[in-house]
Amino acid sequence: MDALDLEQPLPTLLRALVDVESVSGNEQQLADLVERALERQPHLHVTRLGNTVVARTELDRPQRVVVAGHLDTVPVAGNLPSQLRTTDGEQRIHGRGSCDMKGGVAVALQLAAELRQPRHDVTWIFYDNEEVSGPLNGLGLTADAHPELVQADFAILMEPTRALVEGGCQGTLRFWVSTRGVAAHSARGWMGHNAIHDLRHVLERIVGFEQRTIEVDGLAYREGLNAVQVSGGVAGNVIPDECRVHVNYRYAPDREVIEARAVMERLFDGFELDWVDLSPAARPGLHLPMARDFVDAVGGTPGPKYGWTDVARFSALGIPAVNFGPGDPSRAHTDDEFCPVEDLHTCAAALRRWLQPAGQPQ
Amino acid sequence: MDALDLEQPLPTLLRALVDVESVSGNEQQLADLVERALERQPHLHVTRLGNTVVARTELDRPQRVVVAGHLDTVPVAGNLPSQLRTTDGEQRIHGRGSCDMKGGVAVALQLAAELRQPRHDVTWIFYDNEEVSGPLNGLGLTADAHPELVQADFAILMEPTRALVEGGCQGTLRFWVSTRGVAAHSARGWMGHNAIHDLRHVLERIVGFEQRTIEVDGLAYREGLNAVQVSGGVAGNVIPDECRVHVNYRYAPDREVIEARAVMERLFDGFELDWVDLSPAARPGLHLPMARDFVDAVGGTPGPKYGWTDVARFSALGIPAVNFGPGDPSRAHTDDEFCPVEDLHTCAAALRRWLQPAGQPQ
Repeated sequence: MDALDLEQPLPTLLRALVDVESVSGNEQQLADLVERALERQPHLHVTRLGNTVVARTELDRPQRVVVAGHLDTVPVAGNLPSQLRTTDGEQRIHGRGSCDMKGGVAVALQLAAELRQPRHDVTWIFYDNEEVSGPLNGLGLTADAHPELVQADFAILMEPTRALVEGGCQGTLRFWVSTRGVAAHSARGWMGHNAIHDLRHVLERIVGFEQRTIEVDGLAYREGLNAVQVSGGVAGNVIPDECRVHVNYRYAPDREVIEARAVMERLFDGFELDWVDLSPAARPGLHLPMARDFVDAVGGTPGPKYGWTDVARFSALGIPAVNFGPGDPSRAHTDDEFCPVEDLHTCAAALRRWLQPAGQPQ
Repeated sequence: MDALDLEQPLPTLLRALVDVESVSGNEQQLADLVERALERQPHLHVTRLGNTVVARTELDRPQRVVVAGHLDTVPVAGNLPSQLRTTDGEQRIHGRGSCDMKGGVAVALQLAAELRQPRHDVTWIFYDNEEVSGPLNGLGLTADAHPELVQADFAILMEPTRALVEGGCQGTLRFWVSTRGVAAHSARGWMGHNAIHDLRHVLERIVGFEQRTIEVDGLAYREGLNAVQVSGGVAGNVIPDECRVHVNYRYAPDREVIEARAVMERLFDGFELDWVDLSPAARPGLHLPMARDFVDAVGGTPGPKYGWTDVARFSALGIPAVNFGPGDPSRAHTDDEFCPVEDLHTCAAALRRWLQPAGQPQ
């Protein structure tokens, strides 16, 4: 494909995006196509940073909104090229990235081209390396290098939400808890100390932990504390001298990351903790007028976002942010991920209602 | 080396044996040397089966004893060739196999050549593949193919015991206990069921299990039940749907393997068990007159054997058996394994006292 036609029907545009494989680290071809397509729009100012493309209107509106989506996908699993199928009376685009999150990217790209005089200034951001480690994330790199490019009063991240507003996001901590023992031959187990047996104390603390449900800005966030991985032992005849359990704490956005960490340190007092991930939560910000307008334009009842998304990066920059995009989030990363065609139209219509000036269809 | 001199001093003979690398599966060269050396002894009838060498006296004595040792070692770890070192005033032969169990093999080979008219008929067995999986074990294969070659009234296995009699052996069972859950994204943990959390019930049963100390034929056997390995979980953001813990039960020889298995099945009632190893225990048989004579000849107080050894194969054939050999069993398989020179002489002298006819030094 030489060029991306942003005016083609949304399902066709989505299939074109899906068919350009863009597993994390391999986004260049897709970023090139996106950049060229946006540069053809005279109302947009386009900046390219690595494989991140930023396109801004400069209309001197009182307020500015970011609409963002990532271009990369998790690895392909025999699910390319895209397919259009009808299941249970629903038209769906199948293929790697269709749900997470080229559906949202298709909607954003089409509206970026279409909305020449939006009610708020808009910064459209298409970025790379969301599915891999944090330091490579194109949105994060852009915010670090050129914070002025990302600055806004409100942000919409087009992650799949089945076209509902999901506000903020849980924070997530991950860490290893280690137990230590003394190795011995298992025929003389009493000469050692079994580190796996001590694991039960760690598990009892996890299971006994009060998992709160907390209301933040009108949304109820349910917390979770789980052992997600465990390993220990070296052989069938050796008393293990070490056991490690990987713990994941998903916490509500009433807590800062440092508070959440302190809660875990108190809970596992006496054990060694090895921190892997310290990601902040994001408050939904749905009390802000701009966010309320958006929720009205979308319709339905906003819910909390379970799972960590890049809305937390906006939150860290002081920008309230919500998730809103086509596709069922539980389909993300599955081999048969898909995006319902209807979701594409629903999302596009909602953004159009919100962003186009009153009484002025474009 | 073209030939093995069985009359050279024991420390030199041991070093010659150690210097012929014989990691399990690679015993042929050493078995060839052993076979040729024993065939030069006119009082011995030698049979070769694979890399197992059996040499028997045929003196029509009323009773027959087996003296056995394995030729193979665990993998070399930079600990060849052999070295003679003096530490804390003790002369030691270092090198792979010096402790487990070429020290015992050296003693047995020397006495096989020396004792032309032993008080009991003797079947000397030198076998392969003891350090690897049971089905390859040369002693087991020989007993299966030619049970008459192995038949005896008593057996001595020259595993390292620091020249003390260690009677019988514990039995050992190994099995995996699985817990099952339901996978879910860890941000919505309540939609799944965490298999690692259920592990605590398995661990509580292990820790709460009464580990008996049982006297069998005058020796006290201490049991042990341990989790030796654990694994579970697939990723940092997924509620694990399976967790497996590898359990090792070392049990006293008052229990048959089928009873020990039933004890474990009752203990872990409600969990899936996947059996890996079902090895019987061996009774020490020290109440038998022949065994009592042997214990008297060795001197010292017999103890129980912790750890599973091939004495259990003799026990399964109805032959009471003890462990008795040079070297400290806790040195076996270590990179700096060694055999004290004094142990070689102590073991040789004890066997000589027991096997040579009264009033007839050879």
